[in-house]
Amino acid sequence: MITSAHNEQLKTIRKLHERRQRERTGLFVAEGEDLVDAAQEAGFEPVALLVAGRDVEPALLAAVTTLGSGTRVVGIYRQRWSRPGGDLSVYLDGVGDPGNIGTIVRAAHAFADGAVVLGPGCADPYSPKAVRASMGSVFARPPARAAFAELAGTTVALERDGGPPLASLVAEAPLVLCLGAEREGLPALIANGASMRAHIPLRPDGPNSLNVAMAATVALYECTRGRDPARRHNG
Amino acid sequence: MITSAHNEQLKTIRKLHERRQRERTGLFVAEGEDLVDAAQEAGFEPVALLVAGRDVEPALLAAVTTLGSGTRVVGIYRQRWSRPGGDLSVYLDGVGDPGNIGTIVRAAHAFADGAVVLGPGCADPYSPKAVRASMGSVFARPPARAAFAELAGTTVALERDGGPPLASLVAEAPLVLCLGAEREGLPALIANGASMRAHIPLRPDGPNSLNVAMAATVALYECTRGRDPARRHNG
Repeated sequence: MITSAHNEQLKTIRKLHERRQRERTGLFVAEGEDLVDAAQEAGFEPVALLVAGRDVEPALLAAVTTLGSGTRVVGIYRQRWSRPGGDLSVYLDGVGDPGNIGTIVRAAHAFADGAVVLGPGCADPYSPKAVRASMGSVFARPPARAAFAELAGTTVALERDGGPPLASLVAEAPLVLCLGAEREGLPALIANGASMRAHIPLRPDGPNSLNVAMAATVALYECTRGRDPARRHNG
Repeated sequence: MITSAHNEQLKTIRKLHERRQRERTGLFVAEGEDLVDAAQEAGFEPVALLVAGRDVEPALLAAVTTLGSGTRVVGIYRQRWSRPGGDLSVYLDGVGDPGNIGTIVRAAHAFADGAVVLGPGCADPYSPKAVRASMGSVFARPPARAAFAELAGTTVALERDGGPPLASLVAEAPLVLCLGAEREGLPALIANGASMRAHIPLRPDGPNSLNVAMAATVALYECTRGRDPARRHNG
């Protein structure tokens, strides 16, 4: 039973709040029973697992988590990274909000067979906030890292107004949906370099744009609704 | 120029973090330039508007916001509430997370003509977190409050597995998409009392369920994609 805040495992958990430490060690933290359960279900062996009241004093565990009091369990895990691929996947460029990254990892888990591919300027999918937003999907579908130029298949630049509505797109799988941050959108290199462009139609009296997580979720759904995503994509 | 933390307007802003105070006064707060701009665009006159460095010392303003340092402007506004209606709208029951409420308000602004209708157990759409998550859509489309029994039109209970895929539903407008919290789902009264049931198909190897904000966004999109939402709804 850990009874000192100076314990090495507690120190490690605290350090893993920082991206630099996660990158240096290749480790990350899952906080709470739901995420630890998701890790186990996906076959992740914890490097360390601390259960409040069994392995560590509850207050000491709470002090090193981003959840705070009431945290019953924290696991330390080794990061996994997928390769880009699948008949349907998402490529993100400059998406800096970890909550959005986590939500998109979850949406891809729900609708796609390929990993979420992170390009430059994206938040770390293994930050506590991203892991929590993925609701465990980061374990079931570890993300990938790549540059746009490395992508294979039909790349679709999803833009605010560019190209036809996504629902009317005719494209051959494998499809890679490419999205940028809500404000900045995609860099010109990708917007112009993609195989196709498309947009999600919004109401004329609606907002100017969708949050990138909402846009990715809708786009992933659109590309799989009522059809086999491995087949010809025809709205 | 406000130079004291005991200023009444600053105290009001701080108090409006609490739901009870918002309900008692009918006021709420928008923090930051984007939200204050959205308020103005939607024709909301601020009850008070505090600009850092002009009306108030920046540190004092920062101290009473949930954004913290760097907050340039905070507006106090009077809440508005819509009536349920429109050809397409959303009814929420027991959705307690303000971030989800705000995201759904935004999704409805993007895809629907009707307000988001809040049933029992929902978070306050005028909490700072919900207002922020709505990205200003709460001003363009003030939410409504009602009980399920008060809804008119075709109510569609969106469930994890119930009924046919939403894309294959044939229903007459006005449509009201009914969603519960992710874990709990809809209460039996609504699941059984709705005109129809439907679900959003997820991959067999995907998560068990979608977050309610993602589900609502996808459902709203599905009900408007490639067709006039006022017309016959036929996937």
